Amino acid sequence: MDPRTSRIAIERHREEGVDPVADDDLVAVEEPLEIQVGVGQADWKTVSITMRTPGQDRELATGFLYTEGIVSGNGDIESVEHCGPPVGPAGTKNVIRVRLAPSVSPAIERLERHFYTASSCGVCGKTSIEAVQLARRPHLGAGPSIPRDLLGRLPARLHEAQEVFHTTGGLHAAALFDVDGNLIAHGEDVGRHNAVDKVVGALVATGTLPAHDTLLVVSGRAGFELVQKALMASIPAMVAIGAPSSLAVDLAREFGMTLVGFVRGDQFNVYSGGERIR
Amino acid sequence: MDPRTSRIAIERHREEGVDPVADDDLVAVEEPLEIQVGVGQADWKTVSITMRTPGQDRELATGFLYTEGIVSGNGDIESVEHCGPPVGPAGTKNVIRVRLAPSVSPAIERLERHFYTASSCGVCGKTSIEAVQLARRPHLGAGPSIPRDLLGRLPARLHEAQEVFHTTGGLHAAALFDVDGNLIAHGEDVGRHNAVDKVVGALVATGTLPAHDTLLVVSGRAGFELVQKALMASIPAMVAIGAPSSLAVDLAREFGMTLVGFVRGDQFNVYSGGERIR
Repeated sequence: MDPRTSRIAIERHREEGVDPVADDDLVAVEEPLEIQVGVGQADWKTVSITMRTPGQDRELATGFLYTEGIVSGNGDIESVEHCGPPVGPAGTKNVIRVRLAPSVSPAIERLERHFYTASSCGVCGKTSIEAVQLARRPHLGAGPSIPRDLLGRLPARLHEAQEVFHTTGGLHAAALFDVDGNLIAHGEDVGRHNAVDKVVGALVATGTLPAHDTLLVVSGRAGFELVQKALMASIPAMVAIGAPSSLAVDLAREFGMTLVGFVRGDQFNVYSGGERIR
Repeated sequence: MDPRTSRIAIERHREEGVDPVADDDLVAVEEPLEIQVGVGQADWKTVSITMRTPGQDRELATGFLYTEGIVSGNGDIESVEHCGPPVGPAGTKNVIRVRLAPSVSPAIERLERHFYTASSCGVCGKTSIEAVQLARRPHLGAGPSIPRDLLGRLPARLHEAQEVFHTTGGLHAAALFDVDGNLIAHGEDVGRHNAVDKVVGALVATGTLPAHDTLLVVSGRAGFELVQKALMASIPAMVAIGAPSSLAVDLAREFGMTLVGFVRGDQFNVYSGGERIR
């Protein structure tokens, strides 16, 4: 089994209705990787927890340490080993330990920039969904009832709201709509998570949170982090122009959020919460 | 002046050669934002330094605090104010301070997950390029000499190397090539920075760093973080299928890296280091 992809059941909406045959899809796997470093005989320290696609974990860990200036070559590395029990259907191990040579004096201050001070918050032995801790229990509510034809119109509505993209082609956008397609709030940023935070911040300012009966549309792919942020704002539906990740789908299903992806005209895929679409 | 975009000089390569008229481009601005929080009369603490596009900074800061579960509404917020001197051509202020109501007992542990332990590494009063500290001085070398027609072929070469994208549509890819278009290393991940770290990690393992005379091709946009990682590996040229950010261009120019974007067939834009292209 390829640990990089996961096959999941979906509803594939086409012009003529839901496709009864093509009812599954491959999504890119997104799982946390905790990178721990030990120098000589010293204890392990967590220097990063990153959401990654499994595969090339050794390269990811050593490349991260190299680009952060912590190691300067293979000679600084004594060993690289996964630890912890395998989790998930593909048996992924989500903790990797890099033992550095005793002679290496890593730039500790740089390391510390990446410390999770609460390093007990490890992912060892947890499934990815267990490793994801939401600070607030989302209360999504049963609504909204989403007209099927609205979904096809949302990419164009997002595009209208997306001022800077037209000139630079360089920004992610996120926009919140009601079920009539009216724009409630909008954010643009080089960082897709920032674009969603800008939308949520606008709702904080107007006191309109939790954001029941709304849809959040995002210009690119839907990763775990975007779904997490939307859940924190109790936004019950997310529509991505691009693909969702496995963990985004898992999280949406866990909390009953509607997650739609690959919107192309009247065609789209429903990964979770299809009962809100009519 | 719109703080979200920046107009810069570029070389616009078209089939018939470099366009002598259309010699500038608007890029999306990417600058650091340091978010500081104070509770009641307590001192300011840095809870996040994020690369963002200026504009909607208040929304970004309050939205971030909301989606992290630190505030639960506008009533928890006493004030939100920029501080520090304006920097850059658009006079952007890159530190924002959120004063929380004394009654609020924020989830300190959650806050601390985001602490930069070395919080003295602030961005206050620094230009964005000053705020970016590379852990290692890159030595790019004068090469490689990049054939113009190679650039147009690289997106297809990246696509060939990009196995998982074909099935899921959900992954970023990064690949390192020599000037003959031979694949040296390749990484795929839901996170674009991880894809680059996977490439660099493969080079660590084979002892082929610094990576002189190579080109790194990335499947999407080129932000500051990707250029930083490539510079750390002394990769002298980056080719992005999408748009670069302002800070990516600044950083490439500072260190003499060749940065190419918007590759479409024989057409592409050169943002920095055009002298390597022949």
